[in-house]
Amino acid sequence: MEEVRIIDLKESILADNDADADKLREELAEEKTVYINVMSSPGSGKTSTILRLVEQLRLLCRVGVLEADIDGDVDTRTMLDAGIPAVQLHTGGMCHLDADMSRQALREINSQDLDVVILENVGNLVCPAEFDTGAQINLVILSVPEGDDKPLKYPLMFTKADVVVVNKIDAMEVFDFSPEKFKQNVAECAPEAPVFMVSAATGEGIIALSEWIGERVKEILEYID
Amino acid sequence: MEEVRIIDLKESILADNDADADKLREELAEEKTVYINVMSSPGSGKTSTILRLVEQLRLLCRVGVLEADIDGDVDTRTMLDAGIPAVQLHTGGMCHLDADMSRQALREINSQDLDVVILENVGNLVCPAEFDTGAQINLVILSVPEGDDKPLKYPLMFTKADVVVVNKIDAMEVFDFSPEKFKQNVAECAPEAPVFMVSAATGEGIIALSEWIGERVKEILEYID
Repeated sequence: MEEVRIIDLKESILADNDADADKLREELAEEKTVYINVMSSPGSGKTSTILRLVEQLRLLCRVGVLEADIDGDVDTRTMLDAGIPAVQLHTGGMCHLDADMSRQALREINSQDLDVVILENVGNLVCPAEFDTGAQINLVILSVPEGDDKPLKYPLMFTKADVVVVNKIDAMEVFDFSPEKFKQNVAECAPEAPVFMVSAATGEGIIALSEWIGERVKEILEYID
Repeated sequence: MEEVRIIDLKESILADNDADADKLREELAEEKTVYINVMSSPGSGKTSTILRLVEQLRLLCRVGVLEADIDGDVDTRTMLDAGIPAVQLHTGGMCHLDADMSRQALREINSQDLDVVILENVGNLVCPAEFDTGAQINLVILSVPEGDDKPLKYPLMFTKADVVVVNKIDAMEVFDFSPEKFKQNVAECAPEAPVFMVSAATGEGIIALSEWIGERVKEILEYID
């Protein structure tokens, strides 16, 4: 069984995270890597959605996953068991990742040898939205049980989204969730962001999502060239 | 229709929040008010659980609710519609409340005229755990769809819990959630905290929870006297 590599991230000392995030994007362009930042509440299904997504993406390119958590290593274990290069990041109690923490993590996973690196950010619908990680794509997941009103309460997170995923649609019958209302709420924050309905449990909707991501990755790599 | 009162909380300038939280607990003892801090991820069902709880508690005493959100006022609307005194707090983008923000809010809801004030903290399983609000009871809610592994990933939140509530047990059939595994995980963080299984949707388990809360409130008020 492959050993889980755990990296203790150091808090950044840089004052200007936004400038550093732009710098990181330039570095990523240099090495032709697309960095995707996945954000959601705890328990929305980030790990299982990423797993499904990587199963598709790795048919086309080399993909690695960074698993950020305050503690634990279960998600990295899951990725490694599926044969996906993955590194566990411990944030030392911190509620988010910034650009320099991302840089430390990307170095550890040897991002120069990968086409796509997916970051599973700390489960938190508030703070990660305030810190640009340097990612070219911000993907926000909301699960059906959380409710269709969440963009009203956590607007910054949805404002930062390039793409929004509704997970656990297989549980739609049990919960009072209106996809139409949710899409309206998202549109007020992020009018450009498409909304994909998926079930990481059954795999429903994953192909459409991974095709969209694949297209964006191609566009970014072509733009970089 | 009663108007929703929205209070914009000011960020505290006090360096030592822990000392201020102890001071707030003394002030609350002075006025014989019990302050309950409810924390969870976004969408775990804080509002509906509090609503069910208050329906029971207000048979015995005077209860008010503070609704903290980054934006919006839907939850306060819900409380007012149920005839519960409530004030909407806006945190100005902040991911948590501290003791001084609590003090501002308690003043607005006239806590001296209430026996119990329940704070619905910002939906966040990370940051609110780091800031003592001055509450005498910390109640942490985890909903079934979030998964039984969350205490492993967000240990600080569960360490701070005086009581843990598992919500959405009516959806247990749809999700892979082991109450035994969850209770073991909680016990490692908070061995003293009882775990209540409830459904705010159906009302199941609410009586047992409200009885426990009622007992704790009585103990605290007797201790104060």
